[in-house]
Amino acid sequence: MVPRYTRPVMAAIWSPENRYRIWFEIEALACEAMAEYGDVPKEAAKIVREKGDAALAAFSDADLARIDEIEAETRHDVIAFLTWLAEKVGPESRFVHLGMTSSDILDTCLAVQLVQATDLLLKDLDDVLAALRARAFEHKHTLTIGRSHAIHAEPTSFGLKLAGHYAEFARNKARLEAARAEIATCAISGAVGTYAHLDIRVESFVAERLGLKPEPVSTQVIPRDRHAAYFCTLAVIASGIERLAIEVRHLQRSEVREAEEFFHPGQKGSSAMPHKRNPVLTENLTGLARLVRSAAIPALENVALWHERDISHSSVERNICPDATIGLDFALARLSGMISKLVVYPERMAANIESLGGVVHSGEVLLALARAGMSREDAYRIVQKNAMATWTKLGTPEGKTFRENLAIDPEISGRIPADVLDAAMDSRQHLKAIDALYEKVFGEAGPAQ
Amino acid sequence: MVPRYTRPVMAAIWSPENRYRIWFEIEALACEAMAEYGDVPKEAAKIVREKGDAALAAFSDADLARIDEIEAETRHDVIAFLTWLAEKVGPESRFVHLGMTSSDILDTCLAVQLVQATDLLLKDLDDVLAALRARAFEHKHTLTIGRSHAIHAEPTSFGLKLAGHYAEFARNKARLEAARAEIATCAISGAVGTYAHLDIRVESFVAERLGLKPEPVSTQVIPRDRHAAYFCTLAVIASGIERLAIEVRHLQRSEVREAEEFFHPGQKGSSAMPHKRNPVLTENLTGLARLVRSAAIPALENVALWHERDISHSSVERNICPDATIGLDFALARLSGMISKLVVYPERMAANIESLGGVVHSGEVLLALARAGMSREDAYRIVQKNAMATWTKLGTPEGKTFRENLAIDPEISGRIPADVLDAAMDSRQHLKAIDALYEKVFGEAGPAQ
Amino acid sequence: MVPRYTRPVMAAIWSPENRYRIWFEIEALACEAMAEYGDVPKEAAKIVREKGDAALAAFSDADLARIDEIEAETRHDVIAFLTWLAEKVGPESRFVHLGMTSSDILDTCLAVQLVQATDLLLKDLDDVLAALRARAFEHKHTLTIGRSHAIHAEPTSFGLKLAGHYAEFARNKARLEAARAEIATCAISGAVGTYAHLDIRVESFVAERLGLKPEPVSTQVIPRDRHAAYFCTLAVIASGIERLAIEVRHLQRSEVREAEEFFHPGQKGSSAMPHKRNPVLTENLTGLARLVRSAAIPALENVALWHERDISHSSVERNICPDATIGLDFALARLSGMISKLVVYPERMAANIESLGGVVHSGEVLLALARAGMSREDAYRIVQKNAMATWTKLGTPEGKTFRENLAIDPEISGRIPADVLDAAMDSRQHLKAIDALYEKVFGEAGPAQ
Amino acid sequence: MVPRYTRPVMAAIWSPENRYRIWFEIEALACEAMAEYGDVPKEAAKIVREKGDAALAAFSDADLARIDEIEAETRHDVIAFLTWLAEKVGPESRFVHLGMTSSDILDTCLAVQLVQATDLLLKDLDDVLAALRARAFEHKHTLTIGRSHAIHAEPTSFGLKLAGHYAEFARNKARLEAARAEIATCAISGAVGTYAHLDIRVESFVAERLGLKPEPVSTQVIPRDRHAAYFCTLAVIASGIERLAIEVRHLQRSEVREAEEFFHPGQKGSSAMPHKRNPVLTENLTGLARLVRSAAIPALENVALWHERDISHSSVERNICPDATIGLDFALARLSGMISKLVVYPERMAANIESLGGVVHSGEVLLALARAGMSREDAYRIVQKNAMATWTKLGTPEGKTFRENLAIDPEISGRIPADVLDAAMDSRQHLKAIDALYEKVFGEAGPAQ
Repeated sequence: MVPRYTRPVMAAIWSPENRYRIWFEIEALACEAMAEYGDVPKEAAKIVREKGDAALAAFSDADLARIDEIEAETRHDVIAFLTWLAEKVGPESRFVHLGMTSSDILDTCLAVQLVQATDLLLKDLDDVLAALRARAFEHKHTLTIGRSHAIHAEPTSFGLKLAGHYAEFARNKARLEAARAEIATCAISGAVGTYAHLDIRVESFVAERLGLKPEPVSTQVIPRDRHAAYFCTLAVIASGIERLAIEVRHLQRSEVREAEEFFHPGQKGSSAMPHKRNPVLTENLTGLARLVRSAAIPALENVALWHERDISHSSVERNICPDATIGLDFALARLSGMISKLVVYPERMAANIESLGGVVHSGEVLLALARAGMSREDAYRIVQKNAMATWTKLGTPEGKTFRENLAIDPEISGRIPADVLDAAMDSRQHLKAIDALYEKVFGEAGPAQ
Repeated sequence: MVPRYTRPVMAAIWSPENRYRIWFEIEALACEAMAEYGDVPKEAAKIVREKGDAALAAFSDADLARIDEIEAETRHDVIAFLTWLAEKVGPESRFVHLGMTSSDILDTCLAVQLVQATDLLLKDLDDVLAALRARAFEHKHTLTIGRSHAIHAEPTSFGLKLAGHYAEFARNKARLEAARAEIATCAISGAVGTYAHLDIRVESFVAERLGLKPEPVSTQVIPRDRHAAYFCTLAVIASGIERLAIEVRHLQRSEVREAEEFFHPGQKGSSAMPHKRNPVLTENLTGLARLVRSAAIPALENVALWHERDISHSSVERNICPDATIGLDFALARLSGMISKLVVYPERMAANIESLGGVVHSGEVLLALARAGMSREDAYRIVQKNAMATWTKLGTPEGKTFRENLAIDPEISGRIPADVLDAAMDSRQHLKAIDALYEKVFGEAGPAQ
Repeated sequence: MVPRYTRPVMAAIWSPENRYRIWFEIEALACEAMAEYGDVPKEAAKIVREKGDAALAAFSDADLARIDEIEAETRHDVIAFLTWLAEKVGPESRFVHLGMTSSDILDTCLAVQLVQATDLLLKDLDDVLAALRARAFEHKHTLTIGRSHAIHAEPTSFGLKLAGHYAEFARNKARLEAARAEIATCAISGAVGTYAHLDIRVESFVAERLGLKPEPVSTQVIPRDRHAAYFCTLAVIASGIERLAIEVRHLQRSEVREAEEFFHPGQKGSSAMPHKRNPVLTENLTGLARLVRSAAIPALENVALWHERDISHSSVERNICPDATIGLDFALARLSGMISKLVVYPERMAANIESLGGVVHSGEVLLALARAGMSREDAYRIVQKNAMATWTKLGTPEGKTFRENLAIDPEISGRIPADVLDAAMDSRQHLKAIDALYEKVFGEAGPAQ
Repeated sequence: MVPRYTRPVMAAIWSPENRYRIWFEIEALACEAMAEYGDVPKEAAKIVREKGDAALAAFSDADLARIDEIEAETRHDVIAFLTWLAEKVGPESRFVHLGMTSSDILDTCLAVQLVQATDLLLKDLDDVLAALRARAFEHKHTLTIGRSHAIHAEPTSFGLKLAGHYAEFARNKARLEAARAEIATCAISGAVGTYAHLDIRVESFVAERLGLKPEPVSTQVIPRDRHAAYFCTLAVIASGIERLAIEVRHLQRSEVREAEEFFHPGQKGSSAMPHKRNPVLTENLTGLARLVRSAAIPALENVALWHERDISHSSVERNICPDATIGLDFALARLSGMISKLVVYPERMAANIESLGGVVHSGEVLLALARAGMSREDAYRIVQKNAMATWTKLGTPEGKTFRENLAIDPEISGRIPADVLDAAMDSRQHLKAIDALYEKVFGEAGPAQ
């Protein structure tokens, strides 16, 4: 992920330093476990831990360079690290990595990194949820037009729109928690996962201290269906970001103008057109959603490794693990900020509801005719006729509102009392279930209007 | 999905007849709920139920044609159905669909169909799990070579290979159960989800009777993040099928021949080469996995519908809902059959373990040298040297086994007793944790060998 | 592809009847070629042709059933067909398929079917191009607001919008012609493509008569990079459809209403809201684009077949070949009809241009100030200030137009003459290059306004 | 793309320095064009060119920091650059960017960068082609078994395998040249592509000097179908890399051992198993192919920008442009090196051909029986029977070769002379068309064996 869309806190998780720190922690814990179970002298494990901790605490660019130098010869990253570690630890290093295979530390380390990244993403989701909740309660009674097919349908509440997104992000949080459990496993099982040269208890020992669960069968690697499920979950969350981003982009479009991203003092929207204030944050979120989503397919293609493992997944993961988590972290952080600062125009919302002459109340009139005993087919035909007449002449001299057209239609006259027609034109009827809806979503209706 | 890969039981779920049956059930239940809450005469609801049930029971191609005829004019499928229903039910039909919108029945129906499809897929997964379990216990002690990078690594158990796939399919079952919960929701909430013309209790009434949960916020539609998560889950399962299929394809290749798909009497492998017995079932499963997986991206693209909904998801779902579930059902059924009938050749497995002159035991020799006090770097160098010497001359007159080469290496001699070297060459050491592994996967170790 | 989105003319290409007809044609031509080169008695080839032609001419459901019956035993579709053919042709059938392998006819047949499908798609593209061209010339001078970020930018011509889509579809046609060449190859090369049992001239003989080119190296199959490139091309075209569809959906939205899909008499937009006229065609096209696009990934995954071939691509292609071509054919046909019938509202376009008080002319004012010697930074600041002032108070009592605000700004006054400001507010300046643009796209400017 | 898979030469193309250099070049050329056509004083254009060239020549980290600082306030990257440039150029900077919009330089710059990247990729492809060609001629007569379904089929030439990949990469080169033409266009057309504030000849002037073609209709941006087609082409090439990588991985697997990646002195294959020599280069290429391919979907999703443009494509392209070209460059460079150094084992190839007792010659025996007048069905049955008998008992004491089994089959005896059977067992017959095949692929057969 390019720096432009990278927050340092997430980038740090994917730094070489963090990786080597975790690698050492796994090796040290494994060594301590072996000491516990009698396979390694306790004193040796102690020395490994102490000298290793010291080396990692003093880790510098020179160490990075030294590891790279060894890897250039051995062409094997884990062996390069272990050789560097041996240089720091001395003879007791021969008790390090005993009976283990590279994937034991690579895959367990990846689990730790993904857990760290996920915990950050969960925090990001909390921020999004908090922002959505606050604005949803703020606009619980703000009437706005609901649109299906981008055509005015019936009025709804702007808060309810946000509540719908809140409910989606709450689902996304639950999904991400499940995805966290998917990838939080530990494998210390040796060359092809048989524990042939290892005490099987070492794995549980290490797993527990790292906050992971032992992998049931790890062949050589932790099976990649876990990671595929994980990245698919990120893709679903990204798509939820896209849905909300597109909503805001629509609301800000010049003809709608019901809401607008905060425009900073000094900000410029266009090099050529000084009048521009563009929804660049949500457009950016739309693009970031595509990027995060694009990790799903290669992650799925990584599942079918050959036999006990091939290493084709590695280059994929070296990219998509940081890219997708960094991209999603940035997007979620941008999203919560955007929501919190979103400028909302209730008066434009009110104006837009009325802008089609009242035809948005056609459904209620249809029902009133049905209640008055008219067949669905007749009622539909009559209401459609009047709505189309209203719409077609809208803004012309002979234009009439929907209410006016209904009033003079002989097919209706007498069937529905004027007060019923008036009531049908009242947008506030669409808020009648708002308390119940908020109860469903938030567990509370909030203060009355 | 082409008929070739379609099982009738899954196809029936996606038939127009089943869809209309469910549509009616939703309308009838909603009508009964409204009667319960006083919005519709109880007698009317009873007539709707009785005449509708009768019409659906007698549903024929003539009814299909009649509905198509109405849709050709109205260009709206739900209105066409309701009009047909009105023809059957008579005047009481005006109490049908009161205050509801098309999506209320479309989306709730889709939920019911996806639940039906998922229950079938869960049954398929049970069959796969049962087949894998049976073969895993049958071959718990069958030694075979473990391979990383498709290169011989260390011996393992063929049963353990299958146990690893069992563990993955057990995860897949848990994922599918979670995905089932994702899509098992009901929306009866009106034009833009505000219950403006409906009693909110109608939704709960219908949901409970259909085995669904009420959707928290349904705008006009049930939000599509649910379906995206669902199809991503199918994609993960498909990738698990692919992993197992590719394992079998590898095992059957002419140079390996450790296992083979059952070849039917009368079957012909090639029009030009009568000697061929090809792994066509697992190759087919590989392709079906690609197909099922291809539904994930359009499902994710469906999430970001405009405002309260647009209908762009509809054409996607009309295809991927049947295609992906039918394809996965067929693949899982084919998979469980393939596993059950798989012909396994333990003697080829044994021969392959030994085919590289014993170098597959290099890891154990490395450890023996380390235990004898040699540094990891020296030990590695010496073992690698002997392994490469063995490998390079394999099959030539001057070829020696790995054990023979080690025996004459002056760098080793005296360091490791002969019996330790002999023990290092014994493949059975790789079964030492097999009981514990089976306990982890299956909850029981099974009978001793 | 579900019948709803299937046109019979494209479906016929993918029917079993058409496939068997092509299979026979390939076998008959190969037999005639072998007769030509002396490998088969000429009389035998003649009998094969005559009896085969007769059998295909009389092909019925009974023949389909017979072939299925044989396949049920042999589990091999080509052998089943050849056995059926042998029953029709008699003893001379032993000269059929001599030295050939199944893929020779399967892959060559697929090439023929894809060519047939592509020719239909090219015709569809011609229709789209013709429709776009006609409407582009019709609206060459229809002013409309150009939008970037969905925010009003500067005026443009509605015809030019369409011309841009025309240019894209012209590119798409060129791409599809290139893709047609990609898949129009023939392989008659035997079991692993060595012509071991065949005269290499047979391939050229057959290719020429089928309008194909011989494949350079066909291993056993025609290499799948060709098909991957083909389906990627369909994906690009589908995305072009989506771009135009989304444009129309935006133009039809209630707040814009600059254009509208034709609404048929009798059509109903919503079961609950009789006033609705929704852009259902273009929403449908959006979804179909996702579907067609979803064929690209599995087609790309098909490329890396094992060794001389594996058959994993087959199940993929049995689905995506008909699905993607049928879906794209339907979408293109729907698209050209939609464009032709699109209802355009020039007066709404004109009104929308002015709806923001003239700020859309800010760029021209910026240039005027620059021309008058002001620095870019100062000019930008001043114009932005006036534009924002206009925008913010739009529709309020104290609201002024952009022109009015500029007139009273002391930073501007005196710098730009009034007539230059007036000219800057004239939308028609944005048509000054329209003739040149039309020349670029269509090769002609068309009649003057 | 992580540094591990990045070559500096490609990374440099995507550096900020290169981007700013190109941005300035476009602005300077546009300014010179305007001077040429009288819209800007010639002297001013000269000063812009001279001072700008000097500033770019002296470009340092301080300049980068200054531009970032301005962008932090304006939140607009092009305006930040132009402001920095104005600081360097002085008052004449007011003649820079006149009548242009940001996208004019952004998109034209992207075209230049993509052309630069593509030229590097074309060079990489030449290297791959040269490596494949050399090894194909080296192994033109090296017999190896052809495999379909990974099952031994009939012998072929190892050189022909490589020739097949050569033909595919030759197609890939042609595709990439076409893709280069797709993206090599220039847009200098103003805010919404109407040239309202620009002389249309400026675009042609700039395009010609940059080696680009003017874009027919550029709305505000160069249409993204071009980029979608470009990234799809990269995806097809990546899939071709994957096919060759998987071939090598198969050939190196322990049971096949027909070819092997070069193993460097000092290289270590596994931390736990010193005997390992793994095909890590081709496994890495398999993963890189997945990564490059993953750019296709977001590029396709970028096509349908809203109206004259939205900016959602930008964040996508900031990542996929460098990532996909850097990844593909690295992969192609690795691929050509891997092929050149590939260790080939002809004697293992020969041994593998014979390893199934000669059943791989079943096709030729089938033809011999057919030529002898036997029906296809009888011949197939008899040959299949003998092949299966051979195969089943292979390696057992009572095992016989295919030739031996045929010799004693009473259904065959007398029908085919022994010398015909002997000839059918000769693998060299499969080379009979090798000269013609090489002519087809390379335009020359090369030296005789």
